[in-house]
Amino acid sequence: MKIAVDAMGGDYAPQAIVEGVMLAKQDFPELEFVLYGKEAEIKKYVTDDKNITIVHTDEKIESDDEPVRSIRRKKQASMVLAAHAVKNGEADALFSAGNTGALLAAGLLVVGRIKKIERPGLMSTLPTFGPDSTNGFDFIDMGANADNKPEHIVTYAVLGTYYAKNVRKISNPKVGLLNNGEEASKGSELTKEVYERLSEEQGINFVGNIEARNLFDGKVDVVVTDGFTGNAVLKSIEGTAGILMSQLKESILASGVKGKMGALLLKDSLKGLKSKMDYSNHGGAVLFGLRAPVVKTHGSADKTAVHATIRQIHTMLETNVVQELTTYFEADATKANDEK
Amino acid sequence: MKIAVDAMGGDYAPQAIVEGVMLAKQDFPELEFVLYGKEAEIKKYVTDDKNITIVHTDEKIESDDEPVRSIRRKKQASMVLAAHAVKNGEADALFSAGNTGALLAAGLLVVGRIKKIERPGLMSTLPTFGPDSTNGFDFIDMGANADNKPEHIVTYAVLGTYYAKNVRKISNPKVGLLNNGEEASKGSELTKEVYERLSEEQGINFVGNIEARNLFDGKVDVVVTDGFTGNAVLKSIEGTAGILMSQLKESILASGVKGKMGALLLKDSLKGLKSKMDYSNHGGAVLFGLRAPVVKTHGSADKTAVHATIRQIHTMLETNVVQELTTYFEADATKANDEK
Repeated sequence: MKIAVDAMGGDYAPQAIVEGVMLAKQDFPELEFVLYGKEAEIKKYVTDDKNITIVHTDEKIESDDEPVRSIRRKKQASMVLAAHAVKNGEADALFSAGNTGALLAAGLLVVGRIKKIERPGLMSTLPTFGPDSTNGFDFIDMGANADNKPEHIVTYAVLGTYYAKNVRKISNPKVGLLNNGEEASKGSELTKEVYERLSEEQGINFVGNIEARNLFDGKVDVVVTDGFTGNAVLKSIEGTAGILMSQLKESILASGVKGKMGALLLKDSLKGLKSKMDYSNHGGAVLFGLRAPVVKTHGSADKTAVHATIRQIHTMLETNVVQELTTYFEADATKANDEK
Repeated sequence: MKIAVDAMGGDYAPQAIVEGVMLAKQDFPELEFVLYGKEAEIKKYVTDDKNITIVHTDEKIESDDEPVRSIRRKKQASMVLAAHAVKNGEADALFSAGNTGALLAAGLLVVGRIKKIERPGLMSTLPTFGPDSTNGFDFIDMGANADNKPEHIVTYAVLGTYYAKNVRKISNPKVGLLNNGEEASKGSELTKEVYERLSEEQGINFVGNIEARNLFDGKVDVVVTDGFTGNAVLKSIEGTAGILMSQLKESILASGVKGKMGALLLKDSLKGLKSKMDYSNHGGAVLFGLRAPVVKTHGSADKTAVHATIRQIHTMLETNVVQELTTYFEADATKANDEK
């Protein structure tokens, strides 16, 4: 199993990337890595070069590069070279902490889609809490697409089910449809049609609608939505968590000695909360529906987040989730939801 | 100025409703109230009956009643009677803390739309923080509709602008379009078309796209979106804030004496934070685009929230915001966005 690593993507690249790879190597001695980027810089952090190949390149995709154009023009960029390695079968998966839009473009244009999956979706495992809680839920599409048709969202239900089964070892994953009410009659034209199709779809365990306020309850294992809504929901969660944490900090700072002493005593609790909310320990975001795992961790990822994401890729490779999906979608034309 | 009050709607009705009305009477001695509901129960909390009329009825809409059906069948329900009073010109505005769906139905079916406003939207003022912060932003449509056409969202920009100007005294309110990226080129088919139309619309100060993660920054005064997305965003905010607060509490409880002492010392800070995040002090949610103010406060509203919402209705009446909108949409056919 060989992972093509864009060593130059992310705020702390290549250090955090290479250090994360070194940590992952200890867990998974069978994994091989090809690191794309500036050789001299990468080498600084390679503490053990067994199963490590470095492919030198000076070019890289910047975080503000226009996605599709940069993939087409920067043919020697670390991310593009890594994507071509996967396309050509020289590597089995692609990892990057770089420009998300560019990675989506590289996934679609270079790595390529599974036949009959028209619109791959972006999926992450988000945390859940509370008594019914399992270990998070897989949320797809988080924004790879701006417009989705009903059949795309049905495909996401299948993708999420395979991921939850294979990677997260959930035997019969419950799939929920993000909607504006729980009743079957609720929804937009789009979600009403998706609801009907999901109810008829074989091989998934559709349990009905879920509202955005209940996402964290842990009542479902997979939540499907269109990419526009998924993007809005994800960014609302981020924005709200960010503002609450910064406001809490500000309230504490403004409250004088008493508040500061309180905060000091609460430090461990707050740290515990932060790590509970942090979903990067579940791994990165998968551009799902491609012919190989293409996984993105956030730009500010440290070595621990890189390590967790490589663990996730390892599980995806080990469980053959992408091959199983390919068989599902390509072997049986009656199951195809797309490109009919 | 006379407000028709559904005294029976809400978890703490009629007590919280009537007590809130009593508080509001002190601020606005010129306001008159007609309270609909069980006379004997309402009377218990009427400490001053000047400008108060009680219209007795035994019927009320329950929180789980099916909206449209309950409005049509429960003709003597407190909410329905109050809506008819507004329709017949016996009152100038409608207040309720009851079933939101039923109030939307009562607003649309009984009170009625401003001509040429096809799809009234649900709007609240949400809080903002940070250096650029003004006093919150008006968010519309938060979910009155499941599907919106571009022209509806352009109408929301006009509604929000009039509200921010009249009620919140912002001279040239900045209007943002909720979208999946800030660049003008971003968006779904729907938001791209809305972007173009907003750019051409006279009388509004359209400043471009805003992402959900930046809603709280205070860079815009009005944010427009379709009702499905608005609903999802609002519920994501609620869900995230809820889970963070409960997790913080749980972390504190689990952390032993040290954590509990810390929490005790931080009590004031946490209280301050809670009141900062609480947007019910900005008033309730307006079903905007109707021929009169129809305003909903949350079901768990206490007398303070009721008081704040009546203050909001008072300002809407005093500034004639609904009449101005009626003139804008009905007088000049070229400005009409709907029902062309």
